Amino acid sequence: MKVLVAGGAGFIGTNLIEELLREGHQVVCIDNLSLGNTNNLSVLMENPAFIFYEGDICDRNFLANIFEKENLDYVFHLAANSDIRASAQNPDVEYKNTYTTTYQILSCMKEYGVKKIFFASTSAVYGNKLGVLLDENTPKLEPVSYYGAAKLGSEALISAFSYMNDLKALIFRFPNVIGPHLTHGVIFDFIKKLNCDPENLEILGDGNQTKPYIYVKDLVKAILKFMNSVEEKKENVILYNIGVNTATSVKRIADILCEEMGLTNVRYHFTGGPVGWKGDVPRFLYCLDKVHNAGWCAEYESDEAVRKTIQNILATKID
Amino acid sequence: MKVLVAGGAGFIGTNLIEELLREGHQVVCIDNLSLGNTNNLSVLMENPAFIFYEGDICDRNFLANIFEKENLDYVFHLAANSDIRASAQNPDVEYKNTYTTTYQILSCMKEYGVKKIFFASTSAVYGNKLGVLLDENTPKLEPVSYYGAAKLGSEALISAFSYMNDLKALIFRFPNVIGPHLTHGVIFDFIKKLNCDPENLEILGDGNQTKPYIYVKDLVKAILKFMNSVEEKKENVILYNIGVNTATSVKRIADILCEEMGLTNVRYHFTGGPVGWKGDVPRFLYCLDKVHNAGWCAEYESDEAVRKTIQNILATKID
Repeated sequence: MKVLVAGGAGFIGTNLIEELLREGHQVVCIDNLSLGNTNNLSVLMENPAFIFYEGDICDRNFLANIFEKENLDYVFHLAANSDIRASAQNPDVEYKNTYTTTYQILSCMKEYGVKKIFFASTSAVYGNKLGVLLDENTPKLEPVSYYGAAKLGSEALISAFSYMNDLKALIFRFPNVIGPHLTHGVIFDFIKKLNCDPENLEILGDGNQTKPYIYVKDLVKAILKFMNSVEEKKENVILYNIGVNTATSVKRIADILCEEMGLTNVRYHFTGGPVGWKGDVPRFLYCLDKVHNAGWCAEYESDEAVRKTIQNILATKID
Repeated sequence: MKVLVAGGAGFIGTNLIEELLREGHQVVCIDNLSLGNTNNLSVLMENPAFIFYEGDICDRNFLANIFEKENLDYVFHLAANSDIRASAQNPDVEYKNTYTTTYQILSCMKEYGVKKIFFASTSAVYGNKLGVLLDENTPKLEPVSYYGAAKLGSEALISAFSYMNDLKALIFRFPNVIGPHLTHGVIFDFIKKLNCDPENLEILGDGNQTKPYIYVKDLVKAILKFMNSVEEKKENVILYNIGVNTATSVKRIADILCEEMGLTNVRYHFTGGPVGWKGDVPRFLYCLDKVHNAGWCAEYESDEAVRKTIQNILATKID
């Protein structure tokens, strides 16, 4: 198949493209490089089955030209602002990079008759539902971040475009995803801080913020496993919570990091409060029955994913 | 209070403004006149408590200038494409007039410290859930129209902006609303058709599409009753289904219209099928317990609302 990976120079996109190429697909990648990085793609550039377009997916003419030219079979839509903490200061980033990208991609799919899409959604659509085991039927989705709002709006667009144009859509609501090519987040921040001062570590909140971390390789396996499963279904849109059954606290991440860096005398300084930054959801718990019953389960637990990611980052250089 | 009515030259906006002025509020109205009509506002123009700005709410500078100048206490956001059937052909209208208007209004509220908003949402956010009694906790909102998708996306934005900026929001999910100043819809279409040919009436679908119709005066009373109730609540966002307990079929609308026009020999021609046009939700049923328990109930049943609206339109001229 010839597939588009929108936002393919980003963290998850890069990992996905590697696997898509390995499985023999032709990959067209579009990225504006706002968070994505061509370093991630440099190895791929030599692959004749890979084409890269640098540009803005919000620019309909730019996007339509690529749809016109490339004759696509499938769209993987991973283009979004993924730095929720940053967009809390500037919601325009979400309006543009997270919502408008979805709108323009769906419009082009409608116009050029592309019928299949995978969409990267997020646990942030649920909002802050402390103590609720979140499954795909949980009512009253009330996002607290602009990011979660733009992703929920994108899911709504996919619902309407799928119905109106007979598209088939696969949506995963991701938890925190980590692994090779990671660009930001708590692990990144901690490594940078400890590189500057290996004796003190500032930790936002009380350190008890606890979330499931999925290893990106596990996530990519799930995408490839289910990418064509929607065709067999009656519904136009299939949605799964995806993740791991375990979770890791921010303090535990700091502990694992100190172990891996061989640091024994680090003093933790907590900024205090249950939330690291406004718009963050400090704890959530997924019900994964639906995706497990469909035959997929993550290989790595949350703590293992954290440790593997730390090892991977420490083995490469960090600026 | 000094209030903004965004989309105030439209059908519901005009009715709302009349009541807001009667209650002694100062009203700032913005409308791009895409569906709104200054004829509706001509009587109001002489009222010194009323100011009208013609322009596009998607234009941030235009909107910000009004926020800067007017020192608003409350925003009633009714700006949207309300012609779902039209936008089924052109979703750009929803992206712009329904979603982007919400985004820009919330951004200006954030910037200028306006803390209270009423938002006109819709039953279309639920999608097509035949046989389900829809209440505010119904899970899996899957809009089938671009309109419903843009409204659900707007609700998500309100959730995030409210949390991040301590806004208080009141959201009503409207059913079909009819009454004086109506601009389009089935009643309008039927009158036009019968004016052309009083012996034949084409009816889209099988005529059994059955929906609750609320009289606009009832709706406006509910908005005024609850507009400040959110301040007393712990939640940032209060959401109600609003409507009537009864419903009217399309064929019944035709019958009432023929009675009111004094036509006895009209042949109905059904285009057939359960849906009038793609993207329409042919039947839905609201649970209204939440709003009834809060002390509001519609005065007019669905059939009465239809008859009053027909009488009102027939008493005025239709082009």
